[in-house]
Amino acid sequence: MTKYRIEKDTMGQVEVPADKYWGAQTERSRNNFKIGPAASMPLEVVYGFAYLKKAAAFTNAELGVLATEKRDLIAQVCDEILAGKHDDQFPLVIWQTGSGTQSNMNVNEVIANRAHEIAGNVIGEGEKTIQPNDDVNKSQSSNDTFPTGMHIAAYKKVVEVTIPGVEQLRDTLQAKAEAFKDVVKIGRTHLMDATPLTLGQEFSGYVAQLNFGLKALKNTLAHLAQLALGGTAVGTGLNTPAGYDVLVAKYIAEFTGLPFVTAENKFEALAAHDALVETHGALKQLAVSLNKIANDIRLMASGPRSGIGEIIIPANEPGSSIMPGKVNPTQAEAMTMVCAQVMGNDVAVTVGGTQGHYELNVFKPMMAANVLQSAQLIGDACVSFDVNCAAGIEPNQTRITELLNNSLMLVTALNTKIGYYKAAEIANTAHANGTTLKEEAVRLGYVTPEQYDEWVKPEDMTGSLK
Amino acid sequence: MTKYRIEKDTMGQVEVPADKYWGAQTERSRNNFKIGPAASMPLEVVYGFAYLKKAAAFTNAELGVLATEKRDLIAQVCDEILAGKHDDQFPLVIWQTGSGTQSNMNVNEVIANRAHEIAGNVIGEGEKTIQPNDDVNKSQSSNDTFPTGMHIAAYKKVVEVTIPGVEQLRDTLQAKAEAFKDVVKIGRTHLMDATPLTLGQEFSGYVAQLNFGLKALKNTLAHLAQLALGGTAVGTGLNTPAGYDVLVAKYIAEFTGLPFVTAENKFEALAAHDALVETHGALKQLAVSLNKIANDIRLMASGPRSGIGEIIIPANEPGSSIMPGKVNPTQAEAMTMVCAQVMGNDVAVTVGGTQGHYELNVFKPMMAANVLQSAQLIGDACVSFDVNCAAGIEPNQTRITELLNNSLMLVTALNTKIGYYKAAEIANTAHANGTTLKEEAVRLGYVTPEQYDEWVKPEDMTGSLK
Amino acid sequence: MTKYRIEKDTMGQVEVPADKYWGAQTERSRNNFKIGPAASMPLEVVYGFAYLKKAAAFTNAELGVLATEKRDLIAQVCDEILAGKHDDQFPLVIWQTGSGTQSNMNVNEVIANRAHEIAGNVIGEGEKTIQPNDDVNKSQSSNDTFPTGMHIAAYKKVVEVTIPGVEQLRDTLQAKAEAFKDVVKIGRTHLMDATPLTLGQEFSGYVAQLNFGLKALKNTLAHLAQLALGGTAVGTGLNTPAGYDVLVAKYIAEFTGLPFVTAENKFEALAAHDALVETHGALKQLAVSLNKIANDIRLMASGPRSGIGEIIIPANEPGSSIMPGKVNPTQAEAMTMVCAQVMGNDVAVTVGGTQGHYELNVFKPMMAANVLQSAQLIGDACVSFDVNCAAGIEPNQTRITELLNNSLMLVTALNTKIGYYKAAEIANTAHANGTTLKEEAVRLGYVTPEQYDEWVKPEDMTGSLK
Amino acid sequence: MTKYRIEKDTMGQVEVPADKYWGAQTERSRNNFKIGPAASMPLEVVYGFAYLKKAAAFTNAELGVLATEKRDLIAQVCDEILAGKHDDQFPLVIWQTGSGTQSNMNVNEVIANRAHEIAGNVIGEGEKTIQPNDDVNKSQSSNDTFPTGMHIAAYKKVVEVTIPGVEQLRDTLQAKAEAFKDVVKIGRTHLMDATPLTLGQEFSGYVAQLNFGLKALKNTLAHLAQLALGGTAVGTGLNTPAGYDVLVAKYIAEFTGLPFVTAENKFEALAAHDALVETHGALKQLAVSLNKIANDIRLMASGPRSGIGEIIIPANEPGSSIMPGKVNPTQAEAMTMVCAQVMGNDVAVTVGGTQGHYELNVFKPMMAANVLQSAQLIGDACVSFDVNCAAGIEPNQTRITELLNNSLMLVTALNTKIGYYKAAEIANTAHANGTTLKEEAVRLGYVTPEQYDEWVKPEDMTGSLK
Repeated sequence: MTKYRIEKDTMGQVEVPADKYWGAQTERSRNNFKIGPAASMPLEVVYGFAYLKKAAAFTNAELGVLATEKRDLIAQVCDEILAGKHDDQFPLVIWQTGSGTQSNMNVNEVIANRAHEIAGNVIGEGEKTIQPNDDVNKSQSSNDTFPTGMHIAAYKKVVEVTIPGVEQLRDTLQAKAEAFKDVVKIGRTHLMDATPLTLGQEFSGYVAQLNFGLKALKNTLAHLAQLALGGTAVGTGLNTPAGYDVLVAKYIAEFTGLPFVTAENKFEALAAHDALVETHGALKQLAVSLNKIANDIRLMASGPRSGIGEIIIPANEPGSSIMPGKVNPTQAEAMTMVCAQVMGNDVAVTVGGTQGHYELNVFKPMMAANVLQSAQLIGDACVSFDVNCAAGIEPNQTRITELLNNSLMLVTALNTKIGYYKAAEIANTAHANGTTLKEEAVRLGYVTPEQYDEWVKPEDMTGSLK
Repeated sequence: MTKYRIEKDTMGQVEVPADKYWGAQTERSRNNFKIGPAASMPLEVVYGFAYLKKAAAFTNAELGVLATEKRDLIAQVCDEILAGKHDDQFPLVIWQTGSGTQSNMNVNEVIANRAHEIAGNVIGEGEKTIQPNDDVNKSQSSNDTFPTGMHIAAYKKVVEVTIPGVEQLRDTLQAKAEAFKDVVKIGRTHLMDATPLTLGQEFSGYVAQLNFGLKALKNTLAHLAQLALGGTAVGTGLNTPAGYDVLVAKYIAEFTGLPFVTAENKFEALAAHDALVETHGALKQLAVSLNKIANDIRLMASGPRSGIGEIIIPANEPGSSIMPGKVNPTQAEAMTMVCAQVMGNDVAVTVGGTQGHYELNVFKPMMAANVLQSAQLIGDACVSFDVNCAAGIEPNQTRITELLNNSLMLVTALNTKIGYYKAAEIANTAHANGTTLKEEAVRLGYVTPEQYDEWVKPEDMTGSLK
Repeated sequence: MTKYRIEKDTMGQVEVPADKYWGAQTERSRNNFKIGPAASMPLEVVYGFAYLKKAAAFTNAELGVLATEKRDLIAQVCDEILAGKHDDQFPLVIWQTGSGTQSNMNVNEVIANRAHEIAGNVIGEGEKTIQPNDDVNKSQSSNDTFPTGMHIAAYKKVVEVTIPGVEQLRDTLQAKAEAFKDVVKIGRTHLMDATPLTLGQEFSGYVAQLNFGLKALKNTLAHLAQLALGGTAVGTGLNTPAGYDVLVAKYIAEFTGLPFVTAENKFEALAAHDALVETHGALKQLAVSLNKIANDIRLMASGPRSGIGEIIIPANEPGSSIMPGKVNPTQAEAMTMVCAQVMGNDVAVTVGGTQGHYELNVFKPMMAANVLQSAQLIGDACVSFDVNCAAGIEPNQTRITELLNNSLMLVTALNTKIGYYKAAEIANTAHANGTTLKEEAVRLGYVTPEQYDEWVKPEDMTGSLK
Repeated sequence: MTKYRIEKDTMGQVEVPADKYWGAQTERSRNNFKIGPAASMPLEVVYGFAYLKKAAAFTNAELGVLATEKRDLIAQVCDEILAGKHDDQFPLVIWQTGSGTQSNMNVNEVIANRAHEIAGNVIGEGEKTIQPNDDVNKSQSSNDTFPTGMHIAAYKKVVEVTIPGVEQLRDTLQAKAEAFKDVVKIGRTHLMDATPLTLGQEFSGYVAQLNFGLKALKNTLAHLAQLALGGTAVGTGLNTPAGYDVLVAKYIAEFTGLPFVTAENKFEALAAHDALVETHGALKQLAVSLNKIANDIRLMASGPRSGIGEIIIPANEPGSSIMPGKVNPTQAEAMTMVCAQVMGNDVAVTVGGTQGHYELNVFKPMMAANVLQSAQLIGDACVSFDVNCAAGIEPNQTRITELLNNSLMLVTALNTKIGYYKAAEIANTAHANGTTLKEEAVRLGYVTPEQYDEWVKPEDMTGSLK
């Protein structure tokens, strides 16, 4: 049977599970927000809080408003949190107060009670060694800590998961573009046969897409690096010592190894989360690119006998529980599902971003959760797609050659020799008769067989922009 | 040189082009909202107003608060508007006041001035025969007229354009499903070869999708049929005679020939436009279905030589300005662009729907414009797709047979005879060796040639749910 | 140290954790799809599978293709799964193959191995008593089981969580509408003061919104009740005994107590998931309504001294970590975050819905997960909002009366007495002079004090549609 | 009665209105795509074509593949088009082939026939002086011209309409931030009273939002400046002379005065339109910011007597057709409707962006139209909001002071003096008793009256980050 101890806040007493570090406000939130699965607030945000609480303690101490002993106790618990030792101490959900106040208090309470314990005391007994509000939350407000925590979390996720994942896939596609640079194949526009290009050229387009996407994503990092901390309740910095905002950002940069700075305008940093909107916009752009790439690859791999079949992708698992021997483009399917989710998340983040009122946007936890999910899914999906699909792509040379040689669109090479209208006549006639271009070109008297062979060389048609 | 006359409203005098019927408030709006192209407010909404102004005049007269002469003058101008005689008298944009007040006044002013003229007077001279506010707008407010006008417009568009358009396409697809019921072809799941079915079965799925979509759309009409008129400023019906709301809806139903009724709750009808959200949700569902159908058809028509090529679609125009002889699935492209637009419009309508404050939603013109655009585009695109593509679809029997007979997935028919594992072995071996299923099935000793021929009949594999 | 046993499938051998029931294909998927947190596939889908696997076993036995002993073993494990005894046996993620094949196999493998154990054997030793493919998956394909599982899961969630949650909130709001029916207050349109209505009338609008939303949601259930099972691989029902599809749906209906039926068109049921699009569309409509309601309530509760302050909402938790004594509309914030998420999820579901190719839509797990999340969040958020906010709403009568009596919009009551223009003059003059309507009305000579008192009674202005 | 002449293309003869310059393919498209209103293809795209056709003619001439006379004729017609002389010659709709082929041919045909006329001939008589395909379209394909035309159009719109519009509003808000820097007012978080700040600080947050948005938008221009022209049919540059792509971009840059360059990867530039996705993403971010700003302003302006009423906005038009004297925040309503539309357009553009297949994205016209609409609406709405609202905003000093002095949140200033718990007790007691903070602070014995006056100064609470 669960044992309880009594914790209290400004509203009175609350029973809290005796084996947990959290306090009254966390417990109230647990009871008041039973929405969706428990503990849905991303741990990444909690870790972001751990960085900032430690940085705040150092800054407060350096500016003379917190004792060094308290600073060290707070820092020690933050380090434990960052080491993953207290992951089960953060039971709150995304769907709480829109400022994330209760998650801020959850962190404050856990730090205070754990510090009390570290200091040799028993939780729930005696005056708290460290006060959650007056010490851990000193020079802070939920309104500036939560956006700071979510910026730290999002920035880390983007640079540690998203960008490396996309770059890993990009590098593989780049290597494929090189490897396939002489594989001449039929092009397709409108899903219809078109003039030829090389498989390498197709892959170079994918590489270009991802490079543009990476650049767009990196463009958003400067905004995301700006931290609200120091704005406190409404952006004015009430109850912070002079110099606090710049210094606390410096400590966060030091502890995370990332280029965080204090926000140039704290009112914007609390009342709007356009930085998240901006970063998610770039994630969405990557989703658009990845969707196109994954779609192309599964179309090219379709078959094995009744599809396009120009490339072969790895067979990673049995494809069907009823059709024996079936191998499916499952990585492309996972990728495009991720892309659809990211497109949806973008709308959620956008809607949240529009709805700030006055000094505070109160869609913070939802926006943070969506940005973190999208950043994680894109990074992970790129690695999964790379390792389990892209790296193993090989051209099906036999099929590629067969489709290339059959194509009527090679006639385009004759445009500059005999004009568009005659070339069209050749193609239309061959299409109607089920014959080859050469047969009809000669029969119609527009070219000699020798001219045809000289002028219509697929490999020459891929050339001017190789 | 444009001549002007002076019109006035409660704020003072305004110069208005002398050759226009509109008055001071319309002119103010023209000057104050120069956003996007002029006259973007859909004429369908104006026509909706014409119906309701006429109905209000009849109701007011019947309930004794408007003289019969005034009723008849108002009705006469409304009839002229509905006959399209004054389309150039409504210059306002969507992006005006969110209640559409200025478009309501635009209609009031045009009716008043035109009535003055009909009554034998010169516009701008003498006391107005009919007052825009006290007569034309009697027992009304923008807050109940605009939603009424937009419900009339949306309902009419849905039943006159969307539903007939979708039904026309559905009927063609149904006829094709019948016509193609014996065309056995390879199925595809995950874009990969699968067990066979008939082309008719594929088309029957499209028919089912559209039937579900039509049903969903019709389900929304009851809500859309509820009219706000009678709620006036905040839903209480202030300044309306007893019985007005029911009677005015009855007149609108009579004039339009559509089953409009007074809204059961006028507060909801002014403050929220969930009826538009609901109807657009169904339009979006149709867009989802149509996108899938158009996608399938262009994939099946891809080629002519290097794609799937199982069906032939009409060649309506030269496909390429550089590649002679190319024919593209252009109707599918128009359709899928429409679908993407409808998906986007759905978000705009949804966002608008969330944002009402207290007694009034002020995203009315934007919501109405998007619903009308989506309803029109879907209806038109279905007709265009039907006439220029679907009606002319024919199977490419040679190609279908070739792809069917090549397929490895026919092996599934052996599952119930020799088990999933052995069947898989046959398929995998044939795939690896580039051989046929029969060769490998016999070589592996799992079946005799006679058994193979008896058990693996594509036409039998399409059957149990035919 | 984790111990492993060897499992095999058609592709060969795989090491599987010895303490788990799953087999080779599950383990392959675990390794091939490391995207986002583990085990993200909703358990509700797994339970949906448990219902359908049991129903399939009963149907197969009844139709003579499965031994009764096997049926009973399968059914026993399904019951255990439904009792929550094997929740840790389903480690796969949403972001796998888009048909959910691997989750189907996960269920097949767990049932087979657990059945082997129940039958007195040791997992991994001897011939499996029950074969995952040939027995558990008999007369099935991932392509018809996954959509069946997700329809079961979604239907149950909607009727067990969403609808009861919305109805609970609706009932409370209905009770408030009754309780507040005589609380006359100022109306507001465009966020500006307008003519009066009662607080009860405002709440009646919310009730109407939710009733429309509930009706729209219930309209979608008939489509959702249609089950794909029996279509197998491509919708033709290959490898199913005659009568299977109807009978298996009957068993599912019996086991779940819900009105499931076999899909009228199996091709649609595999290739498109418009039923999910349709249901989510209705969930989105509810989100739109709930967003408006929550927004209104927090606006009305704003203050306590510098806002609107017309209602008082319960104080559930300390509101600020820096501003003592602050109480915030946290339930409204949680609700509107949920609404934003549902709006985003709608786009994800919509995008997934558009992308089926040929016989199979491969966005199934993503679509199912989003529908389930939205359905859960709306239901939970309604209950949370009801219990912790709506049920405790009380009018702040002092403030309501003060604001009502100050208002200039009461002048509208004079429109029908002295005309719109003179009424406007009174209001404008009082606004400019900071005086009362009565003072100016009398001073301007348009009414006597007695007339004013008789004509301008706020309580009479709320009346005609009470 | 309309007269017709005969035009022909590779598919045969077509009747075309005799008074129009367009030819067979335009007329076919008119007949085949009756979707929505006529001529919906944005003229901006046509003008983009005019620039590129002229540039192509110059490049072709310079590279020796087009006669100078032909170049000059083509250039002359392009200049006429850019001068707006042929706006009625482009009747096609957005909802045509997804490559925009028919609009490319529309331009080619108009140029050819008008050039024929300029050369002294009669349209429809004799050999065309200039051939639409072989001359006007030389070294081009729809596949590279349409994306080039849409990039030119979008770039111009963004730099000529969007950015100046946003900057104009930003400058006004910046001036207001300065002007209001000493107007101390109550802050609000969660819509609830919070600690004070200045009205200028609030406005500075809006300025910061728009500056971030402008920066994000400008970040996208480098991608948008890359032109596909030179890629021709599939990106290989087939049928273009050496050096063509770089030179033609140079000419476009010269003619437009904008920094266009040739795309670094032509395959990406045809097959994907991530540049449009990227630019629209930034437009959407601006919509998010503008929505928040407009929302705040209408909330602050709400009243006049029963709302917040802290600022006064210009009264531009009578606000209500039934409530005399009402003035509404109509510019904020137009702005937020625009924002909702842009949010919807973003989804349309995103969906279009995901759907390219192989060498060609066929959602070009739809994507271009949405980007152009959003860019125009944002620019126009900012100017309209600036001129008709923002520029006239004035603080309502009396109301601001009244609300500030009433606030309980000033108690936060005591946190650092007496601790969070005691401060909370003071606020809660004052709230419960309807008394002032000072009364309760002194009565509870936590501070002396002198201390209270010294410590609780609103103007000092806005300070540290001023």
